[in-house]
Amino acid sequence: VASLNGYRPSKLVRIGVVGLGYWGPNLVRVLHELECADVVAVCDLEGAALTKIGRRYPAIRRTSDFEELLRDGSVDALVIATPVGTHFELARAALEAGKHVFVEKPMAGSVAEAETLIAIAEDCGLTLMPGHTFLYSPPVNAVRDLIRSGELGEIYFISTSRVNLGLHQPDASVIWDLGPHDFSILHYWLDESPVQVSAVTRCCVMPGIPDVAFVNLEYAGGMIAHVELSWLAPSKLRRTAICGSRKMVVYDDTSNEPVRVFDSGVDLPDPADFGQYKLSYRTGGILSPAIPPVEPLSLELRDFCRALIDRVTPRSSSAVGLEVLAMLAAAAESAELGGQVVLTSASAS
Amino acid sequence: VASLNGYRPSKLVRIGVVGLGYWGPNLVRVLHELECADVVAVCDLEGAALTKIGRRYPAIRRTSDFEELLRDGSVDALVIATPVGTHFELARAALEAGKHVFVEKPMAGSVAEAETLIAIAEDCGLTLMPGHTFLYSPPVNAVRDLIRSGELGEIYFISTSRVNLGLHQPDASVIWDLGPHDFSILHYWLDESPVQVSAVTRCCVMPGIPDVAFVNLEYAGGMIAHVELSWLAPSKLRRTAICGSRKMVVYDDTSNEPVRVFDSGVDLPDPADFGQYKLSYRTGGILSPAIPPVEPLSLELRDFCRALIDRVTPRSSSAVGLEVLAMLAAAAESAELGGQVVLTSASAS
Amino acid sequence: VASLNGYRPSKLVRIGVVGLGYWGPNLVRVLHELECADVVAVCDLEGAALTKIGRRYPAIRRTSDFEELLRDGSVDALVIATPVGTHFELARAALEAGKHVFVEKPMAGSVAEAETLIAIAEDCGLTLMPGHTFLYSPPVNAVRDLIRSGELGEIYFISTSRVNLGLHQPDASVIWDLGPHDFSILHYWLDESPVQVSAVTRCCVMPGIPDVAFVNLEYAGGMIAHVELSWLAPSKLRRTAICGSRKMVVYDDTSNEPVRVFDSGVDLPDPADFGQYKLSYRTGGILSPAIPPVEPLSLELRDFCRALIDRVTPRSSSAVGLEVLAMLAAAAESAELGGQVVLTSASAS
Amino acid sequence: VASLNGYRPSKLVRIGVVGLGYWGPNLVRVLHELECADVVAVCDLEGAALTKIGRRYPAIRRTSDFEELLRDGSVDALVIATPVGTHFELARAALEAGKHVFVEKPMAGSVAEAETLIAIAEDCGLTLMPGHTFLYSPPVNAVRDLIRSGELGEIYFISTSRVNLGLHQPDASVIWDLGPHDFSILHYWLDESPVQVSAVTRCCVMPGIPDVAFVNLEYAGGMIAHVELSWLAPSKLRRTAICGSRKMVVYDDTSNEPVRVFDSGVDLPDPADFGQYKLSYRTGGILSPAIPPVEPLSLELRDFCRALIDRVTPRSSSAVGLEVLAMLAAAAESAELGGQVVLTSASAS
Repeated sequence: VASLNGYRPSKLVRIGVVGLGYWGPNLVRVLHELECADVVAVCDLEGAALTKIGRRYPAIRRTSDFEELLRDGSVDALVIATPVGTHFELARAALEAGKHVFVEKPMAGSVAEAETLIAIAEDCGLTLMPGHTFLYSPPVNAVRDLIRSGELGEIYFISTSRVNLGLHQPDASVIWDLGPHDFSILHYWLDESPVQVSAVTRCCVMPGIPDVAFVNLEYAGGMIAHVELSWLAPSKLRRTAICGSRKMVVYDDTSNEPVRVFDSGVDLPDPADFGQYKLSYRTGGILSPAIPPVEPLSLELRDFCRALIDRVTPRSSSAVGLEVLAMLAAAAESAELGGQVVLTSASAS
Repeated sequence: VASLNGYRPSKLVRIGVVGLGYWGPNLVRVLHELECADVVAVCDLEGAALTKIGRRYPAIRRTSDFEELLRDGSVDALVIATPVGTHFELARAALEAGKHVFVEKPMAGSVAEAETLIAIAEDCGLTLMPGHTFLYSPPVNAVRDLIRSGELGEIYFISTSRVNLGLHQPDASVIWDLGPHDFSILHYWLDESPVQVSAVTRCCVMPGIPDVAFVNLEYAGGMIAHVELSWLAPSKLRRTAICGSRKMVVYDDTSNEPVRVFDSGVDLPDPADFGQYKLSYRTGGILSPAIPPVEPLSLELRDFCRALIDRVTPRSSSAVGLEVLAMLAAAAESAELGGQVVLTSASAS
Repeated sequence: VASLNGYRPSKLVRIGVVGLGYWGPNLVRVLHELECADVVAVCDLEGAALTKIGRRYPAIRRTSDFEELLRDGSVDALVIATPVGTHFELARAALEAGKHVFVEKPMAGSVAEAETLIAIAEDCGLTLMPGHTFLYSPPVNAVRDLIRSGELGEIYFISTSRVNLGLHQPDASVIWDLGPHDFSILHYWLDESPVQVSAVTRCCVMPGIPDVAFVNLEYAGGMIAHVELSWLAPSKLRRTAICGSRKMVVYDDTSNEPVRVFDSGVDLPDPADFGQYKLSYRTGGILSPAIPPVEPLSLELRDFCRALIDRVTPRSSSAVGLEVLAMLAAAAESAELGGQVVLTSASAS
Repeated sequence: VASLNGYRPSKLVRIGVVGLGYWGPNLVRVLHELECADVVAVCDLEGAALTKIGRRYPAIRRTSDFEELLRDGSVDALVIATPVGTHFELARAALEAGKHVFVEKPMAGSVAEAETLIAIAEDCGLTLMPGHTFLYSPPVNAVRDLIRSGELGEIYFISTSRVNLGLHQPDASVIWDLGPHDFSILHYWLDESPVQVSAVTRCCVMPGIPDVAFVNLEYAGGMIAHVELSWLAPSKLRRTAICGSRKMVVYDDTSNEPVRVFDSGVDLPDPADFGQYKLSYRTGGILSPAIPPVEPLSLELRDFCRALIDRVTPRSSSAVGLEVLAMLAAAAESAELGGQVVLTSASAS
């Protein structure tokens, strides 16, 4: 966090933003405030969306013609925030036109598509970055530091809920809509992917569109995780419990105290007495560390600029995006198979 | 609740309590205060447990000889609160000695054992009742009334967490220890059993003893449920979300407001417009109904007395106990199979 | 709320905004989105503040010369959001120049100043409106409706806390900074002013600037209130308890459930048995009504426009502003007298 | 806490308990479990209360004749838990009969009565101890340690609420009923008494019996405090905020985390720049220390035994009881004077 926050670029990246629906205007707003970026154009098929952004930022060029952006030699990079189904085609076209690409999550509609994009970007020497914003969230990074430092001990299991009332996506399951958040966070924390995945879902409101999912993940080292995702819930809940052998953590993005460290656990008996199972439970203090109030989206877009200026791999790399897609695909496949366990490619290694 | 609370028995049931470990003294305390019961004897192998209960209730006969209770013709019924592994043998012996039996949950170690007990009880015309106390809990009954009345609409899914730090059982998985609570509640609310079950578990602290379980349940009508059980948790959590098509409920046994009814949901579009998926989200008021402060254990034991006096089936019937055992067995089997989906007997019908 | 929300003006009010410190930009933002207002100019002494607003709203004229606004015949009204010490002079000059005036709270530095402003506005037939935004807050109005409808019964007492860490004002006590919120709310709910006031304060951080205040209010009808105000607090707290003879309410501006109605109280005994004081406590359900998500500032500024277009008295009238000033002055006087009780003008009637 | 917890007495104190209303049975229960005490007799005017305690503790002698206890030479000490109005007469009689006395709070009905009791006890060389249980509460002691160690810096102010629905006392105001808790805690934390007190009260339900009180306290060193007491409240609230110059604490007796330490505050500017008031707000981490789960009542009664065995002054000394009475009397006097400031005897020094 600190290093990105203090990043001072050597030059300005000229950016076009594609897609001005729910999320696109946020990208424009944050890019507009970045000292390393210059939003030169925005693109959307809806005239109303263009008009609205024009009122706020009259100096930005507006177009409904994506091709125009591709042809514009003054544009260094495209930021794509269109519906998921269009990510692959737009990102490919942009890369092939020589533009660096930031594409919202999930970065493509399948693992194969993502692999194609990655290959093109590598061939052309261009940055391809999926928008896994939580990798730049201060509390997510605080938890990662706790895990990596060993303070939590061995991670036994993680249980997480991301539920709220709405918004149903018309063309994607809740797994594809909300799963990228938790899957990218889990990958960031653990630095590995699950070897097997199972998921039970239900299409409660719209036929064919699962709006609740219970996903179980198993990792090679024994770690297990449960991810609950839903567009139907009595109240917003974003709660993740991380149980370690030494300490435990609750991460809640909606709380004033987003990270709480519980100095609690089970103290193991002397091996000699182990057979008698005299466990001792330790309930110590609880600490809510101060978390710096930095906007993750700003750090993320700064990382994109840095990646293409300094030719380095961004934290939210295309490799991370690929892993997340593999997890999404496995969960969706399991759901379609009625909850059967699906092995992932990580299980092959 | 009301009817049991007001129950006035026609006679007194003479009871022996077997097992004075963690739970047994509670049973003695509550039975002691019931107007329909007379605790005539207590039995435990540990002299210290007998001595301790003797200080509180000097008038109750104490013995370490279970056989003595069986031979005592003045004892009408035995209340068994011993370790799970002994439930079957003790309950069978008691029934065969002509005693009515109340046995703590789970009522036996397997479905087959439970079926044997049920058959003996039927043959002898005796009451056999497992101790599923939550069926007598006022908030659990309040939720059941909301479901049964149709106020919640169709039940889409239920998600529940029952986690706390400890207490590890030396000889049983967390599924067998905590699962009976949630499985009996789900059966009581829905009046049906799941057709398939899958579970992922991990033995974090003690080899061979799962202490965390993520259990998924699927029902014939489409309802799905997730049950998280754990002896490892940063803090005690007992939260159940019930999502219905009309309203939603959060039931939290540890809260001052154990039942909260959310007048929230998704209003479906006109069928003609359905293709456009214009969903409308409704977020209305939230009601915490007043819940009568009645002790469930007292109602439960009163129901046991009533069952054998009036020769009626108790709410926590042996049939319920059997269904719970089938769910426990299916979850444990799935866990051993690495999370594979296990069909239950309910799936055959 | 409903009527203001639906208000459609017959003409456009041309407005100048004076003061672009912490609050002014919010006023510009909201006025900019109102269909009844046209922000034609902004004024501030700081060039940086003008530059910043210019980037957001390039079409708005910018000036550091207040006199220029007064001379501009095309300006109908001035919205004043400068430091409290300047309210009186700027508002007087504006009124005398024939402009309608909206002035942030408190509307002047003393009761006498406020009376002067009110007299000028009346003489000139101009609208003078203080910015008591909470009078337009949906939860505040929901509580008012509960009080006015009699649903709460007689109001026994009100206890409120408005505390947070910061922001110390360099030239005003916490009473003058935070008091206007609670005093205006109390007046709006009760439609009367206290007859006596006492306050204990302390200057913890800056000499001469009280940053914590405990204020007690007593009303003619017996109602009493406590108002805790502080810039020093471990965590933000905005909690108001309203105890009525029939029901009680907790209003918390920071909560997802800002209004909670407790169907609790003491049921009085039969008068004949009164001497025996057999009180019966009733603890019923708790209801969190749905509160419409409307921005109070938008309603407030719309009310200002309506007031001067339709020549009606706005809800946050100058008379209300005067009452609030009287309460502030009484509290400050009591604090200076070491907590002695101060009678207000309301006590004379 | 630690030293009392580990106290091992050299002999057994033979105790009679007087008054078996709401609190008395708790005293009997805890004394019964103490290794340093022997409850030899209980006394109450109500036969039903005696019968009930007899069922639980058949070995304890029961009497309705207080004089009998006074004459019984085998009784070392009396524990008095009768209505406040009787404390003085019973305690005096007990002391004059040569018995050590533990008397519930407040220790008498007035400062003069308390002084009389103290004088008698001193003359006779007997222990006189009021039952200020909170002085033995682990979280109260944790806060005291934080204050005394200087970790909180200078204590700026304390704000506390102790409200709940009920129980109205038929013959005492809420100040006399609930005030002893907070006043004894404040004295224990600060080791000084306020120099002036003001209080506003209302008799909402019963004529002549104040059931809500807003009490302000001012200390010689500048510390101020607010104490809200009420038998009328939407929900139970026991929250105390302690604002120090370096850190702040929230103490909540009803919470799982009864003490929370906020590393927050205002960092003062360099004196040279002071005129510019560039304050800097610090919001650091929050720590909930582990608090040992010890029953305060057990520690308190053990301290009573220790005091009379070892001839030492108990923590809840008669001097503390006297200070609390002086605060109660001042608050009640202020309330009767309509909230006027009342100077205490501490103001004379």
